Amino acid sequence: MFKISYQTYTLNMEHVFRIARGARSSTPLLLTAIQFEDVIGYGEASMPPLYGESHKSAIRFLSKVDLSGFNDPFDIEGMMNYVDNIEKGNTAVKASIDIALHDIAGKIAGKPCYQLFDLPGVNSISTSKTISIDTPDIIKERTLEAKEFQFLKIKLGGDNDREIMEAVRSVSNQPLYIDANQGWKDKSQALENIHWLKEQGVIFVEQPMPVAMEDEMAWLKSKSPLPVVGEEGMQRLKDVERADNFYHGMSVKLVKSTGLNEGVKMAKLAKKKGLKVMLGCMSETSCLISAAFHLASFADWVDLDGNLGVTNNPYKGIETINGKLINNDIPGIGLINPEIAWEKLKG
Amino acid sequence: MFKISYQTYTLNMEHVFRIARGARSSTPLLLTAIQFEDVIGYGEASMPPLYGESHKSAIRFLSKVDLSGFNDPFDIEGMMNYVDNIEKGNTAVKASIDIALHDIAGKIAGKPCYQLFDLPGVNSISTSKTISIDTPDIIKERTLEAKEFQFLKIKLGGDNDREIMEAVRSVSNQPLYIDANQGWKDKSQALENIHWLKEQGVIFVEQPMPVAMEDEMAWLKSKSPLPVVGEEGMQRLKDVERADNFYHGMSVKLVKSTGLNEGVKMAKLAKKKGLKVMLGCMSETSCLISAAFHLASFADWVDLDGNLGVTNNPYKGIETINGKLINNDIPGIGLINPEIAWEKLKG
Repeated sequence: MFKISYQTYTLNMEHVFRIARGARSSTPLLLTAIQFEDVIGYGEASMPPLYGESHKSAIRFLSKVDLSGFNDPFDIEGMMNYVDNIEKGNTAVKASIDIALHDIAGKIAGKPCYQLFDLPGVNSISTSKTISIDTPDIIKERTLEAKEFQFLKIKLGGDNDREIMEAVRSVSNQPLYIDANQGWKDKSQALENIHWLKEQGVIFVEQPMPVAMEDEMAWLKSKSPLPVVGEEGMQRLKDVERADNFYHGMSVKLVKSTGLNEGVKMAKLAKKKGLKVMLGCMSETSCLISAAFHLASFADWVDLDGNLGVTNNPYKGIETINGKLINNDIPGIGLINPEIAWEKLKG
Repeated sequence: MFKISYQTYTLNMEHVFRIARGARSSTPLLLTAIQFEDVIGYGEASMPPLYGESHKSAIRFLSKVDLSGFNDPFDIEGMMNYVDNIEKGNTAVKASIDIALHDIAGKIAGKPCYQLFDLPGVNSISTSKTISIDTPDIIKERTLEAKEFQFLKIKLGGDNDREIMEAVRSVSNQPLYIDANQGWKDKSQALENIHWLKEQGVIFVEQPMPVAMEDEMAWLKSKSPLPVVGEEGMQRLKDVERADNFYHGMSVKLVKSTGLNEGVKMAKLAKKKGLKVMLGCMSETSCLISAAFHLASFADWVDLDGNLGVTNNPYKGIETINGKLINNDIPGIGLINPEIAWEKLKG
């Protein structure tokens, strides 16, 4: 018997986070715990408001989930297939179930989750550190604070892209990932920006143009001197099928992919199609970050910094040391004593 | 019936090429053409003297190759197995046979070689441009000439590493690959160098220490803040088995792997073991470069610039435009009218 519990939680960020489309300083989470016999697995949904999920929608969705028809903790495919068909959307809360189920299966098998998928182990991976949109002085400060990271991810797509880049480059030689968050609306302007960014030491550009501008993105892909990576439009397995029309690579985020089960399928298909894979995240605790680490062997580029710069991460798991996530090979997703954190959260 | 012809050739470089272990301004090649029925395939051996092969050794080896026992142009595995067992070593001349055979098979099947291996297509890949060891003024000049490349590969490992890096960074923000060519003999010094290089915007470090210093390399791998990549010790499939003791990634070079047949096996095994793959080259014509392009789908990092900066490349094939190798999807390895070049070479 699988027994699902949850707690709502609000994750607070040290600094206001600004991108081309808005700003926020906290993120609503739903933390889950699923018990099977004497094993508990932990999961998480991170739900920035613009994606449409909320504490309310997640609780409503969970109330419909009835795993009493399932008895095999390794039949995650079957359970997630059932969960996915309850209702459309709700990808973050679905992911919170998937992750808890993988945590259970890993603990029962005595294996870290990547081994459940027969994936190779990765000792450590360098993550980028995201610098959100801000004044030049604050951007310089944040860049200097991120010295230990091999890569920075710079948010552009607003009115002052050049000013931001100049601020970053005035204090750092770090190679840069750029996220335009759909901010550029004109394809020729986007191409010109990318040519300029290449000279600034940029590795790739994420979501340069709005998802809906498909013809323009296809044109941009064919001309771009840097890889362009799809994010906002790349959510589920079916999206990967079309991705290479518009992008050289794509983002895999557990809260969009509905978790590891489909996330692994997406990454495999992407590789088969010759697409680069970026691992992405939201603001989230060490639960989602640790789960995402198990996809490391697919990753060309890693942006798993969502647990850094938050002030109330309740969990300990895969740790980031000197800008690298370090494998801990703990069975399951890799949390350390999550039961203690869970009990504390209950207050 | 397979009929092998060859021509010796000397490839001349525009500039003297200096690395930690020496300098040269030309490279001996052996160019091969194999005819099967009415189809001709082209291959190449590039033989920088320090690796031990030469015009003489290659001609002597070819004189022993008798493919009269083979009739199936798609049995490259069988033919290369036979060729490999004629004698140890001689990897470059073996590769020249492998490449010509793949060119034949691709032409008969009407497929570019990557499709013979069921690999995904890659439209284009960014190659680094190598800047060899020189005076600061010349390094600045070469760096400025390489503006269109997304990545530069900087040769270090001599006495003036810091001076070289300062020269590069005084004129460029491009992300850097570092090749120390076994130049650092002390592990603590190597680690200190790598920490410093990380702050200079470096992506990875190739062969930081001598191949023979296995314990030191294992230590360095565990501590290094940047990926370390094996090159000099990584030649054949058997080397991949041990690579992850010392390295996060490894180089695949056709002249060492004995060509595409074993090169694909090496890249597959590397990926299975969670190792990053770098595609490397020697000074070579568009024949070897075009052949290596067919491994693009495995590549995390690409250093295929060996046909640039040479003054007498006889072939046209996969072209490099604005720092990117562009797929041409021509059946075989991708050479354009090689028969004309071949006849000209015969004089």
